[in-house]
Amino acid sequence: MSISELLEIAKLLEKKTSILTYLRSLENILLAVKKSDNFWTIVRYSGEPLNLVAEGLRLLAERNYINFSENKIYLSRKGVEYIKRNGLGSYDYTCDKCKGKGILIENLDEDIVKEFLKIHERRPSAMQEFDQGYVAPEITLARIAFMDSYGDLRGRKVLILGDDDLVSLAIGLTGFAKEIAVIEIDKRLTDYISEISRKYGFDIEIYTRDLREPLPDDLVGRFDTFQTDPPETIKALRLFIGRGIAALHGERCAGYFGLTRIDASLDKWLKFQKMLTNEFKVVITDIVRDFNEYIDWEYLDKMHGWKVAPVKIKPESTWFVSSQYRIETLRGFRGFNEPMIDEDIYVDEELASA
Amino acid sequence: MSISELLEIAKLLEKKTSILTYLRSLENILLAVKKSDNFWTIVRYSGEPLNLVAEGLRLLAERNYINFSENKIYLSRKGVEYIKRNGLGSYDYTCDKCKGKGILIENLDEDIVKEFLKIHERRPSAMQEFDQGYVAPEITLARIAFMDSYGDLRGRKVLILGDDDLVSLAIGLTGFAKEIAVIEIDKRLTDYISEISRKYGFDIEIYTRDLREPLPDDLVGRFDTFQTDPPETIKALRLFIGRGIAALHGERCAGYFGLTRIDASLDKWLKFQKMLTNEFKVVITDIVRDFNEYIDWEYLDKMHGWKVAPVKIKPESTWFVSSQYRIETLRGFRGFNEPMIDEDIYVDEELASA
Repeated sequence: MSISELLEIAKLLEKKTSILTYLRSLENILLAVKKSDNFWTIVRYSGEPLNLVAEGLRLLAERNYINFSENKIYLSRKGVEYIKRNGLGSYDYTCDKCKGKGILIENLDEDIVKEFLKIHERRPSAMQEFDQGYVAPEITLARIAFMDSYGDLRGRKVLILGDDDLVSLAIGLTGFAKEIAVIEIDKRLTDYISEISRKYGFDIEIYTRDLREPLPDDLVGRFDTFQTDPPETIKALRLFIGRGIAALHGERCAGYFGLTRIDASLDKWLKFQKMLTNEFKVVITDIVRDFNEYIDWEYLDKMHGWKVAPVKIKPESTWFVSSQYRIETLRGFRGFNEPMIDEDIYVDEELASA
Repeated sequence: MSISELLEIAKLLEKKTSILTYLRSLENILLAVKKSDNFWTIVRYSGEPLNLVAEGLRLLAERNYINFSENKIYLSRKGVEYIKRNGLGSYDYTCDKCKGKGILIENLDEDIVKEFLKIHERRPSAMQEFDQGYVAPEITLARIAFMDSYGDLRGRKVLILGDDDLVSLAIGLTGFAKEIAVIEIDKRLTDYISEISRKYGFDIEIYTRDLREPLPDDLVGRFDTFQTDPPETIKALRLFIGRGIAALHGERCAGYFGLTRIDASLDKWLKFQKMLTNEFKVVITDIVRDFNEYIDWEYLDKMHGWKVAPVKIKPESTWFVSSQYRIETLRGFRGFNEPMIDEDIYVDEELASA
């Protein structure tokens, strides 16, 4: 029950998962088990990559820090003692009114909220092929409120790269944007966006297209704002964010996107932040923790995370979350518009939700 | 009233201020004037450096986009037209319950809140000599709630570098931390912290010391968490954050600090983010907009910002804000503990609040 034993487990865990592992990774997992017995909720609370949590729980069980019982997960006496002796703990102070996002969609026109909920109800389901998994409709609305709070919507040209979350339609409802364009690979989605767009009389430019192809010339250097929600491999991040930046028309334009810790360790976050600041030369203005809450996807029991989970049980509540980033382009910025065809952008040692 | 005229003003403004200036800088100023007629509130809403806003307003007045009247600032017809023709605008969606911070101090024990408000009432005033200017007591409490939400307080050793905001005393009231230490240059403050600490029976290690001196050996590599609120020159950022990181005991320890846009352009933010990710090798986990609201300081009319202000009028409400950052150390991180004696850390072309 010593720090040195946990350090030994961390070493082993790092070797097994190829994910950098720290004493704190294991402490975070133990503290999460203290708060919940459900695997998915534990992943969320730990803030560690799912693949690391899954294998970490196995090793912690072998050393008697935790135990599995009827597909639930509990601290063993040794785990309780470790936390207690070191006085560790955390507490949830999340604002219950805005759910920690800091902004309220109640401040949007109520017709926008009502109509968007209607539109969301009939939307196509999430597809594993494209690593889909969409956010709750309130989150899509919170994203556009966030944009509007920064002046990134009114009178602006907005591009959505991958629109699983129907952000384009929510923006359409506001009537604020000067132009809206969408690039989306899934024809079911572009058909749906096109249908609703016609019905409501929005003017949305829709491209059914693989983002690994370079952007068409007339989309490059044209927009004021982009929104995307990429898979968290470094390749996919360079692709989605790089394309988004390439589509912006100049300096001091803005980009919005989610980044989760469930599919990406903080070491991967750092690699990505270096890409943003060094390669793209954009500044990060906001990182809002757990802004995005994803509705459970139907292919859960077919995804990698299910396979590696040490217990096979369904989530009991929203578990997949991501932080919302906002960036701005500055002098000397550059995007990425090279082709990336034939590259598998959905696989690395940390991605579990695809 | 064209974009090309504003671009011309931006060029001139950049030359006058030596701060990179964009079309959007001027649009942000115009949109802020649309929302308020008070200089300080305009600075806050614009999100642009005070020095840029001050000189920018003068140039915009010369070109008839705005006008000054009885120390107030208004859009002229030309300014109104520019905004209208381009359909620009923003809206405030800030959560009224948590004031946009995403966390609630109501979730702290009510005795902690009550006692801290009492302690805060008798605190020494802010001193210009050390670029002081402290946050409202509710913000200090929100900072420790933020730390506690991440598990960075309970059982942890915490160092406060510069404790104008009395964070050490708030942490003392919780009883959560394993150790608390403070480095502060102002003897009035260390005397006060020491007095209260004795009165309440806290065990706070207090150093009255200039941070430009290297940290004493027994503070290096010892803590789990640090908190600081540095002046926004690049030198001061390297000093305060670098010292904080040098005081951390290893990987996956956390640091908290405020960073304003009023004394730092986004270009300076980017420079600083490169320092964090490349030089210190730490990851940014959170950037919470306008988390810190500063109580007005008594030396307002003696600070640089007052001198450059195009109108001489007092603030009408809280105007100085900063975003709260959280960082974590990762493998290979390093701090900065070299001496910096005789360097003036309070001056650059953007710093206006000192």
